[in-house]
Amino acid sequence: MTRGGRVIGFDPGLRVTGWGIVDAHGSRLVHVANGELKPDPKAGTADRLAELFAGISQVIEEFRPDTAAVEETFVHRSPGAALKLGMARGAALVASANAGLPVTEYAARSVKKALVGAGGADKSQVQYMVRLLLPGCDPAGPDAADALAVAVAHAHHMPLAAAG
Amino acid sequence: MTRGGRVIGFDPGLRVTGWGIVDAHGSRLVHVANGELKPDPKAGTADRLAELFAGISQVIEEFRPDTAAVEETFVHRSPGAALKLGMARGAALVASANAGLPVTEYAARSVKKALVGAGGADKSQVQYMVRLLLPGCDPAGPDAADALAVAVAHAHHMPLAAAG
Repeated sequence: MTRGGRVIGFDPGLRVTGWGIVDAHGSRLVHVANGELKPDPKAGTADRLAELFAGISQVIEEFRPDTAAVEETFVHRSPGAALKLGMARGAALVASANAGLPVTEYAARSVKKALVGAGGADKSQVQYMVRLLLPGCDPAGPDAADALAVAVAHAHHMPLAAAG
Repeated sequence: MTRGGRVIGFDPGLRVTGWGIVDAHGSRLVHVANGELKPDPKAGTADRLAELFAGISQVIEEFRPDTAAVEETFVHRSPGAALKLGMARGAALVASANAGLPVTEYAARSVKKALVGAGGADKSQVQYMVRLLLPGCDPAGPDAADALAVAVAHAHHMPLAAAG
């Protein structure tokens, strides 16, 4: 693994899927782009997933990241909610792997720990650190901010992995 | 919707995804093919999903079905199990929609009702009816049999939908 590279992070959801891209130059991080995909809420599940798949594939095609990172959210809600989340995550993982990107999944706790130093950090602390670590970035929304956080966690992890 | 057509049914799972294809000629059904995709259990989730996506896309490419039907399993297990099932279902839905197929989801109860006449029918009754309705078919395994059951339910549903 090299000490640099372009990372795309995802915070998948059937209603909103956030994505965020950062470039890692050694220990320096640069914000590239971020956004949120919101499939037509009136469409059926398959069409919404296809819209996510197409949208993600297009972003990957445009920005050509080297690796992908997906947040492995801890699911404490109903099995029905977990199923929907799983379908959206499946679309993000399939689109990334289909584009030839190595994909790493990160537990939400380790994303928080990488950014804030504490696995139990709240959402606002994470978003504060995203803006601090990526000066000038303006997340399209909370899910785009979470996606950037995953990308930052992955970028932080890369040099450690190479050195370790 | 026409009174005939080729239907592919799926019983998605991260460990095993069953698929089954039937041709509907009016009220007559003919078995075309069935199989089970079993991604490398030692691979990571993203790679297993990509393997499912590629496998399903290949089956669709080979047999060119007109529509897809996916079983909407009732999830009574843990959120973790629901999440895994969701990811596999996401891969099947994305692969089908990506190939341009209209996708319908069927609750497990309505699949059973369509085949056996009772929503509470057990697995062996469903498999018995699959073999009875599709003479000569030899399901590759229980998940392929379930996939054929979904395809049969969808094929039965089509003329009703056209007549209704």
